[in-house]
Amino acid sequence: MKKLINGVDDVVAEFLLGVAAAHPELHVDHEHRIIARGGGAKPGKVGIVSGGGSGHEPLHGGFVGTGMLDAAVAGQVFTSPTPDQLLEATRLVDGGAGVLHLVKNYTGDVMNFEMAAELAAAETGVEVESVIIDDDVAVQDSLYTAGRRGVGLTVLIEKIVGAAAEEGRDLAAVAQLARDVNASGRSMGMALTSCTVPAAGKPTFELADDEMELGVGIHGEPGRKRVKLASAKEVAASLVEPILADLDFTGAPAIVMLNGMGGTPLLELYLMYGEVSKLLAERGVTVARCLVGNYITSLEMAGCSVTVLRASDDMLALWDAPVNTPGLRWGA
Amino acid sequence: MKKLINGVDDVVAEFLLGVAAAHPELHVDHEHRIIARGGGAKPGKVGIVSGGGSGHEPLHGGFVGTGMLDAAVAGQVFTSPTPDQLLEATRLVDGGAGVLHLVKNYTGDVMNFEMAAELAAAETGVEVESVIIDDDVAVQDSLYTAGRRGVGLTVLIEKIVGAAAEEGRDLAAVAQLARDVNASGRSMGMALTSCTVPAAGKPTFELADDEMELGVGIHGEPGRKRVKLASAKEVAASLVEPILADLDFTGAPAIVMLNGMGGTPLLELYLMYGEVSKLLAERGVTVARCLVGNYITSLEMAGCSVTVLRASDDMLALWDAPVNTPGLRWGA
Repeated sequence: MKKLINGVDDVVAEFLLGVAAAHPELHVDHEHRIIARGGGAKPGKVGIVSGGGSGHEPLHGGFVGTGMLDAAVAGQVFTSPTPDQLLEATRLVDGGAGVLHLVKNYTGDVMNFEMAAELAAAETGVEVESVIIDDDVAVQDSLYTAGRRGVGLTVLIEKIVGAAAEEGRDLAAVAQLARDVNASGRSMGMALTSCTVPAAGKPTFELADDEMELGVGIHGEPGRKRVKLASAKEVAASLVEPILADLDFTGAPAIVMLNGMGGTPLLELYLMYGEVSKLLAERGVTVARCLVGNYITSLEMAGCSVTVLRASDDMLALWDAPVNTPGLRWGA
Repeated sequence: MKKLINGVDDVVAEFLLGVAAAHPELHVDHEHRIIARGGGAKPGKVGIVSGGGSGHEPLHGGFVGTGMLDAAVAGQVFTSPTPDQLLEATRLVDGGAGVLHLVKNYTGDVMNFEMAAELAAAETGVEVESVIIDDDVAVQDSLYTAGRRGVGLTVLIEKIVGAAAEEGRDLAAVAQLARDVNASGRSMGMALTSCTVPAAGKPTFELADDEMELGVGIHGEPGRKRVKLASAKEVAASLVEPILADLDFTGAPAIVMLNGMGGTPLLELYLMYGEVSKLLAERGVTVARCLVGNYITSLEMAGCSVTVLRASDDMLALWDAPVNTPGLRWGA
């Protein structure tokens, strides 16, 4: 295992030290492993909390800031944060208008966010709504997940819902919007290589030199099938077709993300985006906005994922709203 | 070789197709492999052109836009663009105030930019100034280079000089500023793994499972020494000490970049930044601004580099000026 770390047990704690050093505008709670906006909760604004296992950066910590998340909670690598951590984050961002939990659909995350919401209601009276994100069309159930997994659409939901909260919409409206975006978006990913969890010290799975995994999960969970290496054009079709088969994306503007899994150069990601956008055009999908780069990663895994959102005019306007976070920044 | 490509000969051309699809605000000249701002040359503004071999993205194409480059020219992977391409880019961005060439110090790049400047003067009368960037403290001469190599400081020079041109400064002032920044900054990098040039089909160099290369070049050129794997803390010292030994960075604000080589997760890059910033503080260097992420890469190489710039107040103000490019965006 070749990694730029000190001890395997200190990776997340030391990552947070680096984030605190690089981003004095953010507040880092090292005890609870929370990255939050500096300046505390904004009175009257719905607080938005997300989080999950580490190793997917910039998600979630890199998306904290104006127009996106209020706080992100970091578990160990690929491991859910605890209810205590999530409760503390919920307290931290409560500005009196309630708190929205954005939860990727993994059994541990769902359970721990649920416990935190119950504790928050019982102990502090803060109102919490939770939205489960489950956009991955690859497989129905999976390692760590009952139902579909939450993957790339999380980035788009955090941006759109974050903008809505920034505008001052109330908790019920913001939660409904998150559910609407989740219902309107789909993703699928693939891997050329595995990744290595520091504490495990060896690759999560094995792939032969001439193989790739279609439909891989963001923790290296098995996908739909293991196939021979193929061209970028064929890979694009393998990702886009299952997405289009699952939901009708014609007749509305689409927001598309071509996401890198962490170890694939931008040179290849743009090349892949060229193939994906060509294919979408052929299939009658109108891309209104796109994002190409590493936004939800799986450590150093080589590979990519495609996310397509059927956007309403409201979602599109919220997508365009200013955002100012380490990982996503425009118009601010 | 596992890559998301079609044919090895089509990588750069197809990368540009993806860039064009993703960034309609940019103008892509596919024949000459130029990424330029949309809307043509800005009358009275110094045009800024950079370029070099592909495989270092987002550098240079991702830094085209308001506040940074006017055009970037893409060679084949790790191969200099031709004089013809560079001449065309020079013509394209000439708004009557002259054109600045920002050239990383590699023999092929220096030669081809020089020929383009001569051709531009002879054929079109456009005034060209060239600044050679040579910030790498690792080695004196190297594969492909007489003198020091141009590496991470290129990103900072493109940002600062781009802002100065945007302000309307004249060619002589902008060129002198580029030289001043080059004289005030130093970099050093390291690799945990090699990278694979598509056309070569095999890793550029071999590193054992327990080895790393200190002082590696951005094309995988040999560095200072090959050593056993070490902790993040030790790696940080191996990169920072040679930089501090080469130039005094105390008594002025520093701009610091912790750059990923392409295959290293953000989790590790932030962890490394924590180590680097701690060390700089111990050594009396005051970090005024920093940048953590993948900005000048070597395909999928795992590793990182550190760049430190001793910034004047002018450079700091130009650093903070609005920038709006695919790879760097703030305040705009």
